[in-house]
Amino acid sequence: MPSEGATHPFSCSVLAVGTELLLGQVVDTNSSFIGERLALAGIDSHLQARVGDNLDRIAAALRLLLSTSDAVIVCGGLGPTQDDITREAIAEVLGTGLVRDLAMEERIGAMFTRRGRQMAANNLRQADRPEGASFIVQELGTAPGLVCPIGVDQVVYAVPGVPAEAREMIERAVVADLQRRAGPRSVIVSRMVRTWGAPESTLSELIADRVDRQTNPTIAFLASGLEGIKVRLTAKAGDMATATALLDAEEALLREILGPLVFGVDDESMEKAVGDLLASQGLLLGVAESLTGGLVGSRLAEVPGSSEWFQGSIVAYDSQVKFDLLDVPEGPVVSASAASAMATGARRVLRADVGLGITGVAGPTTQDDQPVGTVFTAVDLDGEVEVRELHLPGGRQLVRQLAAISLVDQLRRRLLDRA
Amino acid sequence: MPSEGATHPFSCSVLAVGTELLLGQVVDTNSSFIGERLALAGIDSHLQARVGDNLDRIAAALRLLLSTSDAVIVCGGLGPTQDDITREAIAEVLGTGLVRDLAMEERIGAMFTRRGRQMAANNLRQADRPEGASFIVQELGTAPGLVCPIGVDQVVYAVPGVPAEAREMIERAVVADLQRRAGPRSVIVSRMVRTWGAPESTLSELIADRVDRQTNPTIAFLASGLEGIKVRLTAKAGDMATATALLDAEEALLREILGPLVFGVDDESMEKAVGDLLASQGLLLGVAESLTGGLVGSRLAEVPGSSEWFQGSIVAYDSQVKFDLLDVPEGPVVSASAASAMATGARRVLRADVGLGITGVAGPTTQDDQPVGTVFTAVDLDGEVEVRELHLPGGRQLVRQLAAISLVDQLRRRLLDRA
Repeated sequence: MPSEGATHPFSCSVLAVGTELLLGQVVDTNSSFIGERLALAGIDSHLQARVGDNLDRIAAALRLLLSTSDAVIVCGGLGPTQDDITREAIAEVLGTGLVRDLAMEERIGAMFTRRGRQMAANNLRQADRPEGASFIVQELGTAPGLVCPIGVDQVVYAVPGVPAEAREMIERAVVADLQRRAGPRSVIVSRMVRTWGAPESTLSELIADRVDRQTNPTIAFLASGLEGIKVRLTAKAGDMATATALLDAEEALLREILGPLVFGVDDESMEKAVGDLLASQGLLLGVAESLTGGLVGSRLAEVPGSSEWFQGSIVAYDSQVKFDLLDVPEGPVVSASAASAMATGARRVLRADVGLGITGVAGPTTQDDQPVGTVFTAVDLDGEVEVRELHLPGGRQLVRQLAAISLVDQLRRRLLDRA
Repeated sequence: MPSEGATHPFSCSVLAVGTELLLGQVVDTNSSFIGERLALAGIDSHLQARVGDNLDRIAAALRLLLSTSDAVIVCGGLGPTQDDITREAIAEVLGTGLVRDLAMEERIGAMFTRRGRQMAANNLRQADRPEGASFIVQELGTAPGLVCPIGVDQVVYAVPGVPAEAREMIERAVVADLQRRAGPRSVIVSRMVRTWGAPESTLSELIADRVDRQTNPTIAFLASGLEGIKVRLTAKAGDMATATALLDAEEALLREILGPLVFGVDDESMEKAVGDLLASQGLLLGVAESLTGGLVGSRLAEVPGSSEWFQGSIVAYDSQVKFDLLDVPEGPVVSASAASAMATGARRVLRADVGLGITGVAGPTTQDDQPVGTVFTAVDLDGEVEVRELHLPGGRQLVRQLAAISLVDQLRRRLLDRA
């Protein structure tokens, strides 16, 4: 938790607006994101609240948070419709009215024109701002954000509820403004060392010695489901360079202990790790998928620059397609031999150096007498096909996701051994 | 949003305790669950808050919520360790002390014995309760919950933060006690009518008449990014059958007004809608993808039973693969003619009745002189290829996702016209 500076306990709370959040129809991921971002920026955040789309209740909650915080970030209720009333609630708390901003009106109109869409008149409500407030210009959606100073010491920010839009504005505009207001702070920086292939208890035993000695950076585990288990390092220092050096040193130690269990840090995905290995070894990749339906290819194509090493994928969902396009021998298609033939077929058909094959049973029913969760994965590289048989837990979606990641990890380890 | 009964505006708020929630290391799913459960039980819930593991701040937040609510459910901070201080905070707000409960001490000790585990002494802290409070006996974990009456009119419940334990206690003990306290209540049920293809402002104008007349069900919009825009209907009635009938009637009216903009309700995805149309028309589908890298196929394969109508997908990420496998004419591959050839190629190669083709620029850089966001989609059906040119906003991931959904929607509309 961010420690408080002795001289300046500047703090920022978060208010998420939306009846759908209270009713549990949407999980409030924005507040979590903002909390994490504030912690990284060294800004204390002690309270978060959620309230429905009701003018009086939004205003009351905002007053409440302002009574204990220097800044409040309000998330949601900035859209064009009648139930988007965050602007009105902020104006009420500020004791001012709303003014229509002509430049913003033009900007919103131009966004619709550029996208070739008719603009409903109510979109112009988004050009309203409380008197004295300024806009955070919108880059993704049509709603701008707001910066609303209260006197010289306090401020209310408003950002849209759509997560991508909220995050973009927080990153671009809100965090920097908060840091300026909070004054010099000690820097708190975290780094996630990302692992795949061992449960939390095993990781914990492997690095028990490091955990026992932890002071700065601190070390914590974060089970992240499909993203593997993350080991979070958090360092505190007077400046960023010192904090980063502390993290670098600890990361190097952990990598030495954990070896290939570590596939990256922070936002580095498993697919990026594989892409880097393929690119550095000058290899082209082709994939043949069945139960994953295109998920393996889709995840690989998420990596920017993937066209350098990703040729494509044959999604042979139907058995006949496997036989015809990939030369899989007729017979059970949930089998080691089918996976192997798929990998080799992908390599040949897609003119690649490495071929991946994956087939299995995602459910809801069994197939080829194999129970749900049975998956065969294959890597064809340097004239050698390696096949693995997996028994994965969970329902249809989880099996497909785990299968895709396991296959990419299998390739990663082959490429590491080869390097 | 649940409307308030005129005679008895009983309301319950939620306080989630845990520094990990504020720091965004754990997403607070308990509050969402509780909010949904309260809505179903007809209990109004207007405010939710989150606070870290700090005695003064928990107590302050609890006082705050009690100033506006009849009941508060506190979630988290009931475990055995030193940072579990919800019991102490409640006692402070109640102005009482904690008492150690001997029967509960025995129960906790017996749980450890039964599981063959040594009990650390601090586990007995879980046998403490504020004076005047009673326990909610624990069925799953080692921490009991608490029911803490304040005078005759108010109450604080405490449940553990572990989601499974929290849910079990809420379902078993808390909801029923709340309903007893709130007196006879009505049922509140929601339904999401899901749309794609028109912005929120247009939808809002189309159904302005229904929104103006809304009383029961109420109507609200929910922009859900990649899941389209949802229109939420919320009905209140004396029993479930009456509430459902109200929702059915409003849904029918909205479908009549919005036509093909509506693709489903609640959990029904766009891909499920397309799969149902394909199955009912006896058509097999084949896909050829470029920028989406397998995403279209992967989304289609998410639908249980998709093997009945989904043949597969050729992910031709590399241009040469497009030329070789799909007979795309050599030349610019980000073009209407390439998309059209891909759709036809997919239909032929995958032995399908319908072919989809999609090519475009996801970024980060331009391709074939086309800017990022330019996408061509094609549907080959009944001997007619329909090509669309899109200009999508956002970065690499958003462009890919929007492109995939737009293509599936294009197919949906073709199939609807055909039916």
